[in-house]
Amino acid sequence: MNERQPARRPGGRSARVGAQVHQAVTDLISERGYGNFTVGEVAARAGVADSSIYRRWGSLETLLTDVALTRLNAQSPMPDTGSLDGDLRTYAAAVAREITGPDGLALLRLAFALAGTGDQGLKARDALRAERTQQLQSMLDRAGERGEDAPSAFDVLDHVLAPMYIRVLFGMELTPDYVDGLVDRIL
Amino acid sequence: MNERQPARRPGGRSARVGAQVHQAVTDLISERGYGNFTVGEVAARAGVADSSIYRRWGSLETLLTDVALTRLNAQSPMPDTGSLDGDLRTYAAAVAREITGPDGLALLRLAFALAGTGDQGLKARDALRAERTQQLQSMLDRAGERGEDAPSAFDVLDHVLAPMYIRVLFGMELTPDYVDGLVDRIL
Repeated sequence: MNERQPARRPGGRSARVGAQVHQAVTDLISERGYGNFTVGEVAARAGVADSSIYRRWGSLETLLTDVALTRLNAQSPMPDTGSLDGDLRTYAAAVAREITGPDGLALLRLAFALAGTGDQGLKARDALRAERTQQLQSMLDRAGERGEDAPSAFDVLDHVLAPMYIRVLFGMELTPDYVDGLVDRIL
Repeated sequence: MNERQPARRPGGRSARVGAQVHQAVTDLISERGYGNFTVGEVAARAGVADSSIYRRWGSLETLLTDVALTRLNAQSPMPDTGSLDGDLRTYAAAVAREITGPDGLALLRLAFALAGTGDQGLKARDALRAERTQQLQSMLDRAGERGEDAPSAFDVLDHVLAPMYIRVLFGMELTPDYVDGLVDRIL
């Protein structure tokens, strides 16, 4: 993500371009699927120059992960309820809701797509994972600072997120009791 | 799978056709990816009539899951070591080896592909999951019959298989200690 300009004024030109490019990517993914469009096509759809995209994101892969992270942060932001129990249950429920919605497995699709595009893609996939893991770790660190005994971000990945994703991929239902049970298990 | 003929004599014509068709599917998946070939193309590649494929498998989706199950059974068969501990460790290590190999995530790719092909595909995906879960459950039932306190097949799916798959998909290494730790956790 270090290709991104650090500061964007909300409502400024940079924010407007960012929103147009994100929308163009989202549309192209839903119309054609990953791997079936280029930076030039994103630029044309967004009405911006190719060079604006390369300057800001550096590559299509980095842009795709930025769009995915923006979506994740909007749909399942890391909660801050004041307790580990509340944070984990809120987060798990938000993820469950998101991944059972339309194209809920977008993150897994993106990981597959990035893995198929060589070094650039693998780097982008690793950056996506690192960023999201770090967000999760911050939530768990807050619990630690309150004196709560928090699991690691990897425990949450392995025993809360992974089962939910795999169950949805294989067509199994995620009931609220099931999701709560996953949280109980790691607390 | 109920479209399959129940009996195939090893070495007989039926077995030969089965092997040719499976090979054709494997080749077409690796050349073109899922969703990019038809029953007619499989038949042409295998040198058999389309009708032979429809008679035996009923649909492309059923054929794809049959190929996937055959691969799974060859690469990570359910072990029978005489103890739950041995069975689970052997199985987890075999799955880890398989999914970190070339196209190790074939099963996840297939699940995505089937989910995109309507009712027929969803049914085939569910049949694949049911068949594999049932195999796993048989292994766990043997442990129960020996008086061992076995987890459920869903526990193994959620807390051993799912974390390994998601970690590989996101580019994390599966060390033998990590895989053993997952087994320790559910035993």
